[in-house]
Amino acid sequence: MKISIAQLNFHIGNFKGNLSKMLEAVETAKADGADLICFSELSTCGYPPRDFLEFEDFIKKAEDTVAKLAKAAIDIAIVVGSPSKNSVIEGKDHYNSAYFLEDGKIKQVQHKTLLPTYDVFDEYRYFEPASEFKVVEFKGKKIALTICEDIWNIGNENPLYTICPLDEMIGQNPDFILNLSASPFSVTQTEERIHVLKSNVERYGLPMFYVNHSGAQTEILFDGGSIAMSPDGHIFEELPYFEECIRTFDLAEVEKGGVQKEQPRDKIALIHDALVIGVKNYFGKLGFKKAILGLSGGIDSAVTAVLAARALGPENVRVILMPSQYSSDHSINDARALAENLGIQYDIIPIKDIYDTYMEKLEPHFLGYASNVTEENIQARVRGMLLMSFSNKFGNILLNTTNKSEMAVGYGTLYGDLCGGLSVIGDVYKTDVFKLARYMNKEGEVVPENTISKPPSAELRPDQKDTDSLPEYDILDAVLIQYIENQKGPKEIIEMGFDEKLVKRILRLVNINEFKRHQTAPVLRVTSKAFGMGRRMPIVGKYLA
Amino acid sequence: MKISIAQLNFHIGNFKGNLSKMLEAVETAKADGADLICFSELSTCGYPPRDFLEFEDFIKKAEDTVAKLAKAAIDIAIVVGSPSKNSVIEGKDHYNSAYFLEDGKIKQVQHKTLLPTYDVFDEYRYFEPASEFKVVEFKGKKIALTICEDIWNIGNENPLYTICPLDEMIGQNPDFILNLSASPFSVTQTEERIHVLKSNVERYGLPMFYVNHSGAQTEILFDGGSIAMSPDGHIFEELPYFEECIRTFDLAEVEKGGVQKEQPRDKIALIHDALVIGVKNYFGKLGFKKAILGLSGGIDSAVTAVLAARALGPENVRVILMPSQYSSDHSINDARALAENLGIQYDIIPIKDIYDTYMEKLEPHFLGYASNVTEENIQARVRGMLLMSFSNKFGNILLNTTNKSEMAVGYGTLYGDLCGGLSVIGDVYKTDVFKLARYMNKEGEVVPENTISKPPSAELRPDQKDTDSLPEYDILDAVLIQYIENQKGPKEIIEMGFDEKLVKRILRLVNINEFKRHQTAPVLRVTSKAFGMGRRMPIVGKYLA
Repeated sequence: MKISIAQLNFHIGNFKGNLSKMLEAVETAKADGADLICFSELSTCGYPPRDFLEFEDFIKKAEDTVAKLAKAAIDIAIVVGSPSKNSVIEGKDHYNSAYFLEDGKIKQVQHKTLLPTYDVFDEYRYFEPASEFKVVEFKGKKIALTICEDIWNIGNENPLYTICPLDEMIGQNPDFILNLSASPFSVTQTEERIHVLKSNVERYGLPMFYVNHSGAQTEILFDGGSIAMSPDGHIFEELPYFEECIRTFDLAEVEKGGVQKEQPRDKIALIHDALVIGVKNYFGKLGFKKAILGLSGGIDSAVTAVLAARALGPENVRVILMPSQYSSDHSINDARALAENLGIQYDIIPIKDIYDTYMEKLEPHFLGYASNVTEENIQARVRGMLLMSFSNKFGNILLNTTNKSEMAVGYGTLYGDLCGGLSVIGDVYKTDVFKLARYMNKEGEVVPENTISKPPSAELRPDQKDTDSLPEYDILDAVLIQYIENQKGPKEIIEMGFDEKLVKRILRLVNINEFKRHQTAPVLRVTSKAFGMGRRMPIVGKYLA
Repeated sequence: MKISIAQLNFHIGNFKGNLSKMLEAVETAKADGADLICFSELSTCGYPPRDFLEFEDFIKKAEDTVAKLAKAAIDIAIVVGSPSKNSVIEGKDHYNSAYFLEDGKIKQVQHKTLLPTYDVFDEYRYFEPASEFKVVEFKGKKIALTICEDIWNIGNENPLYTICPLDEMIGQNPDFILNLSASPFSVTQTEERIHVLKSNVERYGLPMFYVNHSGAQTEILFDGGSIAMSPDGHIFEELPYFEECIRTFDLAEVEKGGVQKEQPRDKIALIHDALVIGVKNYFGKLGFKKAILGLSGGIDSAVTAVLAARALGPENVRVILMPSQYSSDHSINDARALAENLGIQYDIIPIKDIYDTYMEKLEPHFLGYASNVTEENIQARVRGMLLMSFSNKFGNILLNTTNKSEMAVGYGTLYGDLCGGLSVIGDVYKTDVFKLARYMNKEGEVVPENTISKPPSAELRPDQKDTDSLPEYDILDAVLIQYIENQKGPKEIIEMGFDEKLVKRILRLVNINEFKRHQTAPVLRVTSKAFGMGRRMPIVGKYLA
């Protein structure tokens, strides 16, 4: 038996586009002589469809897509993920399902059992879990159909769940396992996933075909990396990361095992590729081509510009240098050098005149009040406004250049440097931004050395340095990781050896700046806990604040 | 037996403040001769604590608060809502619980069974449902403890759930029902709630004491309206809306029934009071006193200014009039008249010079490109920036004045008129904004008549009217309600008799403007479906777009 797995980049709600992509893949699989082709989770409507699932019209369109796909299931079986209606009155209205299509019609439907409801996942908001488990019989083989999280409670050892779908099916003697996934990328996920697959095939002694979504859906990045795994726990083949790909396997070959093919998984390289695909798909799926961003000469905007140029092509990236009286010469030179290295269009617009006009109007009202953060914010906002003017006039999406460390402690100006349609490096800690820059330079200098090695500064007042307001980034990031990623409280973090006053100050800054993060662009997610939909915090609260 | 119910305004994460508020209430109840006092759901930590529940440190602080409260349970029993740990490894880590405190210690704990996971609710993200049901025996009476949603599946008729907690307890012959709630306000909720309580007491023939949170938690508004209901379905007493209140009842009196006390529930009056408390608590809980907003002479900013003055006092509201060359004389006069009616400070800052300086800088770059929305947006953004400068300099929170109709279709400028720390009327349709203005004028003109009666205009180009870009508001709102509140698809809305082209255009505008709403302030929620945490939509999607 020959099995095709297709890791494709679906588009939420684009039923027509998703269908034609799948129909094309079916033809490819047929040409490969496949008996069966399997797509990823909720591939008719794209994952995650979020509250669109509450619209009957949306569900109807997904059902229509399955019906159309079923007609193509002639001389080949198709397994496709799509929402289905729960006909029982009690419980949620829908299931997250895997449809088995054969002979031009729907042969069988298996629902998802384990519904992740944590971090970026809201599945129990929409779906009822499966209560029936039945293998699919196909050409003399029995197939155990599972969906994503279903294989993440191996032998019921995951404390979140009380049922293990494969334990329920194993008595029916399946020959192999199919898993339809939409499993988001994070720097630890690729590794973990292989471990989970290995544990499953070893427990059941069966080969597994794992099909993951590949591509970005706004902030959530799916890395593909679909796998055919042999019963001995070897990776028979792993499909590439962040690419669409169809591959056909001979079941007998996979069953044999002994072959181990893995691809490199360097953390910084993965982040780099994830962010490039994130930018590329954000633009592509919105129907935009061109980006704009402000280049300060600092490392954050430099790294963002490089990612944009690699995602969209240098001809589609435009940058504006907006020096003020506090900008150092080297900043302008560094920014210009980067733009020239990348071959992107750049313009220089000094902000002094606009700033002065503002201050002239505000002066009578500010009489007797000392200069403070207000004046710094005005500079940042003049820049944001100029960039948005270019965005509006020429149809470029403004890219936000804030890193995760700054975003965490609120070191940024709302409606100023926090402007933008997409936050590219908002889930990358400053210490990793440096590593990204070095990685980008590995085949020759792209990011100017001076941009990497000079002390970070917002340049909003004379001789300003980030460390005037913030601790050194290596310490700041270490504390932030404990609080944000590991959800440790102040007591636990202090016990790790960090300074008490510093820890309390950092945690307080994180909490009181929730209002800023509430108003920022979607953040491309690369860690296990990114700002945005996966981290839901009250704005008005008093905890550690 | 005497029972006190306390509808208080808790503050998320403010364990110390919440505890002292409860200790004070315990003293009041004792002075009233109460045998028992009951607080609302999760009152130790405030509702909804959201992802703070994932921090062990946060849970520990809630447990400490319960322990301290238990010590005060001498000569009185205390029922308090707080998270508790799930000692079973499988399932979620915590329960949403009601603690029964007596004789200085925890006597019994009843967990919540029905965990709302829809709209603004994420309870299954955090909590494991109860599986045991045991009435509390106290001074010869048996009490059925329930938490909020637990009483919303009367006789298992709610299709969302498969268990009815009171059906499980009724065999133990309870004497009365206690319900600890944190049930958010919406214009339909007060009515629905009474209906649900009535159905419960009639089914079980028992009196019920329903204790709701009162006050705002960022965007979610709790109206209190706690109820003592007699077994005959009569409202023995309903506590006031949007006020903190403690009331003590004689159980025997409530059991007798026959008394019916209700308060008026006019939709516009309720929205008015809800928004006033929303503004007041947002500022109060953040530790701010003063608001600022831009006054255009139009109805949205006028209504927002009145709400702010009523919430914070006129002395704490400051407005800026920022006319451009396109502002009509009447706009400035109307705005000035409103400021004078309210007795609030106002300043006039014409934006022309700043606008001209921007255009001068941009001109060389925009050469050959026609004037378009860019120039309109610059005006809106200059205003936003001026307001933010006042906000930064004087510590005023900027109030956003966008209504729900505009926010729905994206009729607003990001980083311009969409600026602000709180969206006051972002859940009020334009047609209701007019009604609010009329309601505000019922005891004398506050909002100038001309502001209410002139055709709405953004005044960003000569003779502009909202209806140049948008349909008439009565039609627009009617379509929006079907799509947003009732989740109807295009086909269903067109079948109601609306113009096909118009419906498709409106739905498309709603969907393609998700990116703007993603970056706006929290919106005070008054309808059953507000923009924000209760409506989760993909930004990059192709459905109806």
